Amino acid sequence: MRMYDIIEKKRDGHELNEEEIRFFIDGYTNGDIPDYQVSALLMSIYFQDMTERERATLTKAMVDSGDKIDLSGISGIKVDKHSTGGVGDTTTLVLAPLVASVGAPVAKMSGRGLGHTGGTIDKLESVPGFHTEISNQEFIDLVNQNKVSVIGQTGNLTPADKKLYSLRDVTATVNSIPLIASSIMSKKIAAGADAIVLDVKTGAGAFMKNLDDAKELAKAMVSIGNQVGRKTMAVISDMSQPLGYAIGNALEVKEAIETLQGKGPEDLTELCLVLGSKMVLLAEKATSLEEARKKLEENLSNGAALEQFKVFLASQGGDTSVVDNPELLPKASKVIDVPAGKSGTIQTLIADNIGTAAMMLGAGRATKESEIDLSAGILLHKKVGDAVQKGEPLLTLHTNIDSVDAVLDLIGNSIVITEEEVDAPVLIYGSITE
Amino acid sequence: MRMYDIIEKKRDGHELNEEEIRFFIDGYTNGDIPDYQVSALLMSIYFQDMTERERATLTKAMVDSGDKIDLSGISGIKVDKHSTGGVGDTTTLVLAPLVASVGAPVAKMSGRGLGHTGGTIDKLESVPGFHTEISNQEFIDLVNQNKVSVIGQTGNLTPADKKLYSLRDVTATVNSIPLIASSIMSKKIAAGADAIVLDVKTGAGAFMKNLDDAKELAKAMVSIGNQVGRKTMAVISDMSQPLGYAIGNALEVKEAIETLQGKGPEDLTELCLVLGSKMVLLAEKATSLEEARKKLEENLSNGAALEQFKVFLASQGGDTSVVDNPELLPKASKVIDVPAGKSGTIQTLIADNIGTAAMMLGAGRATKESEIDLSAGILLHKKVGDAVQKGEPLLTLHTNIDSVDAVLDLIGNSIVITEEEVDAPVLIYGSITE
Repeated sequence: MRMYDIIEKKRDGHELNEEEIRFFIDGYTNGDIPDYQVSALLMSIYFQDMTERERATLTKAMVDSGDKIDLSGISGIKVDKHSTGGVGDTTTLVLAPLVASVGAPVAKMSGRGLGHTGGTIDKLESVPGFHTEISNQEFIDLVNQNKVSVIGQTGNLTPADKKLYSLRDVTATVNSIPLIASSIMSKKIAAGADAIVLDVKTGAGAFMKNLDDAKELAKAMVSIGNQVGRKTMAVISDMSQPLGYAIGNALEVKEAIETLQGKGPEDLTELCLVLGSKMVLLAEKATSLEEARKKLEENLSNGAALEQFKVFLASQGGDTSVVDNPELLPKASKVIDVPAGKSGTIQTLIADNIGTAAMMLGAGRATKESEIDLSAGILLHKKVGDAVQKGEPLLTLHTNIDSVDAVLDLIGNSIVITEEEVDAPVLIYGSITE
Repeated sequence: MRMYDIIEKKRDGHELNEEEIRFFIDGYTNGDIPDYQVSALLMSIYFQDMTERERATLTKAMVDSGDKIDLSGISGIKVDKHSTGGVGDTTTLVLAPLVASVGAPVAKMSGRGLGHTGGTIDKLESVPGFHTEISNQEFIDLVNQNKVSVIGQTGNLTPADKKLYSLRDVTATVNSIPLIASSIMSKKIAAGADAIVLDVKTGAGAFMKNLDDAKELAKAMVSIGNQVGRKTMAVISDMSQPLGYAIGNALEVKEAIETLQGKGPEDLTELCLVLGSKMVLLAEKATSLEEARKKLEENLSNGAALEQFKVFLASQGGDTSVVDNPELLPKASKVIDVPAGKSGTIQTLIADNIGTAAMMLGAGRATKESEIDLSAGILLHKKVGDAVQKGEPLLTLHTNIDSVDAVLDLIGNSIVITEEEVDAPVLIYGSITE
């Protein structure tokens, strides 16, 4: 078998078989196949696409290229959730304790933030004492005991995907549905989940800028998951503006606490209920989405979800007093209100720009090596469709940096106030369940 | 400027400008841009094509990547001929002295054969004493003096093309009209020609298997030539069966001599007159194709072309007595007639298989390092459309190898005799003159 023939076959629009896909993935992972042949194949895939069968096979081959996490020591159906990335996306902080509170085990491997997108581990580390440096066995024990634990990625998961992603990043082949879908799904599957709920974001702040692409990606991932024996569902949700009001690590923890108390932002609460219902259904802790949602709503109002959050934080060294007194979370030295320049209705609130502004304030990493300021970020007071009076605060900056001039410029270019009526954007565009 | 953006622009179907194309070619030639980005761009070009302007710019950038031969010391308009490669293509041996005989300077840089395609320098070296190791100044002096000289390639011409071709060869991006056309034209232009006549072959023995592709390639090359200020014309000719009757170095020299005597094979003679007329017209040694053809026909019948061949051979050390006595050319120890297995009409005579059979007999190189046997080859007695009787010789093998069993097998699979009527194939499918 020769890589040349595999490139040619895909170039000419034919379906690659399992042997060919494994030859390519194994050969690339072990260094036998050079970058220049792989980039030619990736560009052919960009143009010729892959069938559902090819996508599933590619995903499995990438899973098999490295370590696989064994979660069989945890009793019950382990459901993972994955978001394609957004700004102010506090859902994991809320969902982990909320879903656990109805008895579904949440064994979450999470990452750190990069660019305008935040990371769950960074956010949790704003709780004093909280840490994720625990062994795999401790992780499994904690989930069995408390139904929830979060750790960083361990092991050499999907090295083929890491190598491919680096190459795609410099050869203009990132934006390909089969390649994005197999990349995400291979990581989730290698991380050991039995079932997967996907939150595919769409809009200006999302990787998928338009709805059709987001739907296609969601369908592609659900198809892969179900083909490889992991029950998978997807929700397509809005990321034209940030989710909730808080962007930044400690600010989002505070917002998560409020949400777990049943008094969080409407959009964040609703999305958590929609995603959470699917997680609970897949974990077989309810027999319908309606029943699952009812259980979750109950645990938001009766304090069970909040209590679960405290147990979770404590189990990994976190100071639970922040839950009752969020003022104990890291606080920025500067808190600056940004007023509206005119009266009207918010028409646009460009999510990725707001995310970048929060990063510039210290909340995120421009590069992997950057330090982050857990106290920094942005608190929105208005969202798209809201009326605003001239001079009223649009948002508040939290930061320790010297000059916020550049941030104010960026924000000025990211918020549009109009005299016309504006509807709030749709939050959830649809679900894909098979 | 970043290579990433250039890949993305072409991937999305936009036209690259001169600055972008030169950035890519210069950066690749000097090693700043890695193979894996170039192969992604090449695959994008494969799918998105290039505009006429992009093709001309790419060609110029490749010409400028290396040395350029300066033929300004030769008086008159230097017209070069290029064939896309075939089996038994004796045209250059005939055209060089024939066109020179009517006063058009022929300063020919030629190559050696590889695979099933022969090379003009190998063929000429079957004339005892003939050599092409002469300096550029001697080459120029010889053309001024005798109107014709042939040398091997000198200088570091189009290094960008060499590097690109090696990469295309392993990334399934050879078969792309803009890339083929710019590769051929860059070499011709760097070799210093003022005007170019192209012989684009089509059929089983050609690189372009079908007529539409051959026409598209011919148009692409003519467009490039004319855009960069070199008058260019093209002929599309048949290579479904070998041209003429001889395949092999000394055998083709003998056939060239017969053609220069006015008694050569009909197809070879006709193609030489068609190509030669265009060369003479572009060299401004005639004011119309008709006048040019008339002059060439005269010099075939009055002995002037043959005399010019003798002068040419002598000027580069060749023994001219072979012209009057071709028996002095290298002769194989074995001469084996291959008879027809049944009576009928020749339906198929697969050109590339016959070429490969000649190579196996010793006439060609399987790899660049192989030695060749100048005496070896195949002499056809019948061509497509000819009637043949069972037992009558179809062709004769000339060789010094021990066993011809494998060659006979290949030939057996390459010639089809039918009981139906078969027309001889069209020789010339058309011309492209602007």
